[in-house]
Formats: sequence, structure tokens, C-alpha cells
Amino acid sequence: MGEAPAGLTWTLIEQARARIAPHVHLTPVLTSSTLDQESGAHLYFKCENFQKGGAFKARGATNAVLSLPKAEVSRGVATHSSGNHAAALARVARLWGVPAYIVMPQNTAAPKRAAVERYGAQITWCEPTQAARERAAEHVIGATGATLIHPYNDLRVMAGQGTVAVELIGQVPDLEVLLCPVSGGGLLSGIAVAARTLLPRVRIIGVEPEGADDAARSLSAGKIVPCEHPTTIADGLRATIGALPFLEIRRYVDEIVTVSDAAIVDAMRHLWEVMKILVEPSGAAAYAAVACGRVKLHGARVGVVLSGGNVDLDSLPWIRPAPG
Amino acid sequence: MGEAPAGLTWTLIEQARARIAPHVHLTPVLTSSTLDQESGAHLYFKCENFQKGGAFKARGATNAVLSLPKAEVSRGVATHSSGNHAAALARVARLWGVPAYIVMPQNTAAPKRAAVERYGAQITWCEPTQAARERAAEHVIGATGATLIHPYNDLRVMAGQGTVAVELIGQVPDLEVLLCPVSGGGLLSGIAVAARTLLPRVRIIGVEPEGADDAARSLSAGKIVPCEHPTTIADGLRATIGALPFLEIRRYVDEIVTVSDAAIVDAMRHLWEVMKILVEPSGAAAYAAVACGRVKLHGARVGVVLSGGNVDLDSLPWIRPAPG
Repeated sequence: MGEAPAGLTWTLIEQARARIAPHVHLTPVLTSSTLDQESGAHLYFKCENFQKGGAFKARGATNAVLSLPKAEVSRGVATHSSGNHAAALARVARLWGVPAYIVMPQNTAAPKRAAVERYGAQITWCEPTQAARERAAEHVIGATGATLIHPYNDLRVMAGQGTVAVELIGQVPDLEVLLCPVSGGGLLSGIAVAARTLLPRVRIIGVEPEGADDAARSLSAGKIVPCEHPTTIADGLRATIGALPFLEIRRYVDEIVTVSDAAIVDAMRHLWEVMKILVEPSGAAAYAAVACGRVKLHGARVGVVLSGGNVDLDSLPWIRPAPG
Repeated sequence: MGEAPAGLTWTLIEQARARIAPHVHLTPVLTSSTLDQESGAHLYFKCENFQKGGAFKARGATNAVLSLPKAEVSRGVATHSSGNHAAALARVARLWGVPAYIVMPQNTAAPKRAAVERYGAQITWCEPTQAARERAAEHVIGATGATLIHPYNDLRVMAGQGTVAVELIGQVPDLEVLLCPVSGGGLLSGIAVAARTLLPRVRIIGVEPEGADDAARSLSAGKIVPCEHPTTIADGLRATIGALPFLEIRRYVDEIVTVSDAAIVDAMRHLWEVMKILVEPSGAAAYAAVACGRVKLHGARVGVVLSGGNVDLDSLPWIRPAPG
């Protein structure tokens, strides 16, 4: 009919919130007088590291699976992911009593593999390339009839992630700035649509690593510009922004800023030491933009999304491990 | 008059609570469905790792300093401690604008030294023996007129620590068991008096490391039996129980159990991984007694005090550091 493709709407986010509420945590918002003093702002940390499965991904995966017709969901759900989305999908599938088929690259870190196995998902191993992942996923879906739940390029997933902002804005009145990491864009797009609806004048800033700055470059270019070889310690921020999230991000996000890996590691460690909470590198990126002075806040009330807390405790970036 | 020496009373704890409330955090109580399933009980974690300065010690030190007459406090306060009490005392002294004199052994870990320095305390270094510490503290007090605030053998300190239980019992109704680490006994005695007043039938269990089991042996012997050479990774649990805390612990505590260092490290790591919070070895001891099956809980509602979260992130017990 010549209309623009349907994008993410406030209604989808509201529906997601009601749908997932019984199955995910309403995560706390923490503050720190030390970090406020250091930053010269009022920081409100939305602790998705305390979410079910240790990351915001539980929201989108849960909303997507619970949105499926019964006949469809009973054949199972599938995805290709080495990270938190895989575990989140495995978790909700077990909750719903349906099979989960996860395609994972052979070089997946042990703790992330363990999380998926703990939830009883069926894992298919593949070569660590995008093409091999997609081929393996297609094969699994063809063989099982399972439904693909994409980690971010899916309105149901984006709507679920947007519930982070609905909660945060309910917990902290009068936020002036929102800082959120960006990778494939599911979280940032969901947050942007929700926040723009509830707080039209809030400044929305996405943060990504310098070594995986496709969102910043895509926003400048006005079209998606993939990173060919993303290199960053933030393993959750290596994906290229998806087409559906990009539409919303172009429309509603004020700015994308980049931070170095060194700034991410410093920020992560500082959050651990001062706030006594575990945040993974990807989860610390938004705060890194504050800590390294990449965004100017001038005393504002700032929501900072700590997106996840799944860390390999045997391999911390500031400890050089013993050989062997 | 032939009366027993005045011990810790509920009134002292109530007064402490009102006195310190503006200056310390009302710390949250966290729960975990994973840890509940594993333990077969309902665990309510009182997160003193989120307390000001990263440990419950802020409570006792603050109450003691705020109890002093103005003329006395203006000459300053002093203690000998290499740990969280030193930082807590330094913090409240700065808050009150009075000098803090801290005697620390030369082998104090860098992060604990840094915490005391951050609050602007005057540090006197001494040999790492109990005798050298006490001698140095006496010298400092003689030279300055400062008041000694003992880390645990002091009713004002014990009353402050007891506010942990007042809060916890207010946050979680109908607790049946309370688990708390024990070292010098300030925390356990305060909690015991408060909990016995508010919940007369609650089962109160102290937990200490096998390598520093003076409280268990003292309770058996009916008199204080010091550990000559405490050896445990839990650096906050190496002190010998004090005379004033021991009086209350004998009267009100049901049992002292011991846990191995291996159990403490496992518990600490498990809390980090599952709950995404930092807990120091001493802070994980009470949960270790649950995780290793040392206490039987049978579905009970159990308060578990996580007493602190100050960890040297460069030296984690499960990572063998690189040489040099």
C-alpha cells in the first residue's frame, strides 16, 4: 500500500511488559554517592546484570516466545548466538516446555556454553563464521520446524528489551539522559521508543566500542555500514546493527558515542570496586562513556543501563593468568 | 553492688539505630531462586557488602564516634586494624571533621590501605604483631588524646552492628534462622541481642573458619580460648573473640559452626556467579555453611549476613597469578 514498514510501537512494548512481567525480574536501580561525586551528575544504574540469566536478553526472548501461536511454539525455537540471547532463549523454552535449538560457534567461552546447557537446550556446533552460523541454523530449522528467534532484528525482541526503559522511568522520575550500550540495536531501539514516548525530551545516547563502531558510522552514513572485523573485549557488542533496530535508532536516538576497550575495562573494574556488583564488559560500556568523560552531563539525572553481568571469573581482563 | 557487668541491651541497639540512620545505608535484602533451589531453603541475603565503605563496620564505628562527648571526639579517634573497621572509623571521623589515627601493620593489603588513606586518616605503621599494634596505638593515643574505638570489644560498636538484625527482621517477616560470620564477635553479639529481642525463637548460628575456630572452642570451653596462629583466607575472621561479645554470644547464640577455606572460596565464587555481587571471603562464610551442608535448614526462612565486599581484584583466590 506504499506505507513504510511497520516499526516498533509503544503498544508492542506495553504488551510485552504485561506478557513478560511474571517471568522476568523488575530489576533494581542502584545509586552511588562516590560515582555521583566523580561524575558530577546523578547516576541511576538500571541493573540488568541482576536480570534472570544475568542479562536484559531474558526480556526480548521471553516476549518473543510467549508471542508465538501454540502450534508454532510447540515445535520449538531456534537461534544462532554464542552469548546471552542463547541462554535467555534456552531458559524461556524450558519454562514453556518446548525444545530450544541453539547454534553456537566452536570457540564459545565455557561459561556461556554452560549456561545454555544448564537450561537443557540442544546445541549444534559450527565454525565461528557468520555464514556457517546461518547455514547451521537454517539446517536445524528445516529439520525441526522450530521458529527462529533472532537476537535483535525482531520486533517482539525489541519490544521486550524496551521494557527496561519503561521500568527505569517508573523507578526514577525526571530522567534527563539515558545511556545504553548498542550492538545489534535491540536494546537501544526498544529503549528509544519507550523513552521517547514517556519522556519526549530525554536525551538518548547509545554507546559502543571503538573497535565495533558500526552504529556510529551507520548513523553518520544514513545506512547500515557493517564492521568487517569487530575487535573489542565487549563480546556482547560485536554484532552489526540490524535493519529493524536501525530504523528506530535513526528516528529517536540523539547520538552514538564510542569508548575504547581500556575505558570499558577501567569502568567495569571501577563498578565492581565501588558498587560491589559484577558487570560484564558490554554491560559497563554505557558507564564507561561517563567515566572517561566522553559525554558531558552537567549535573543531569542520568539513567545508565548495566546490561549484563555474565563474566568468566577465570579470565578477568586486568589479571594476566599464569602460563599453562 | 555485686551486679553482673552491664552487657549489650536492646535499648543500646535502638539508640544506635536512630543515631546512625542518617549516615549509613539501609542495605537491601536479595534473594535468588537458584540458591533457594540448591539449598532447599528460603535464603534472605542481607547485603552489608553494599554498606558504606563496603562492610557492616560502618555501623559500629559510626555509632561509637557519634556517642562520644563533643570535647572528647574533637581530639580525634584511634584504632589498630588492618581491615574494614579502620576504613569505617576513618570515614566517620572525616564526616564529623575530627582526626582519625589508624595503626596498621606493615603487611596490610594495598586496597585496605588505600581505603583508609582515601578518607584522610593519619596512618602509623607498625610490625605485624598484636603487641606491636597495641604499643603503637597506646603511643598515638598518649600523644594525641584521641579516643580508642576498639573494633569489637566495645558496647557502642556492638550496638551499631546489631542494627543489621533490626533492619533484616523488618525487611523479612518470620525468619526462622539467622546465619552470621564470627570473628571478634561484635557483629554476632549485636545481631544475637537484637534478634533474640525481636524474634525470641529464631535459631542464631555463628559461622567461622576452621583455621580460626576460637569462638567454637570458646563456647565449648565456657571461656575464651584464643587461636594462637589463625590461618584462613578470610582475613576479616582472624581476630579472637572479645570478652564483651563473648558474654552475649554465650547467652543468646545457639551454635557456632566451622567451614573450611575451600568451602568459603567456593561459596564466594558461587555468590559472584549466581547473584552478580562481590562478597569478600569473610562475607561469604555464613553462606558457605549453607552451601557445604554444614547446617541443615529443611525449608526454613533463613537470614544470611553477607558482611562485606572489599576484595583485592588483583588477587582472587581461584586465579593463579602470573609470575612477576
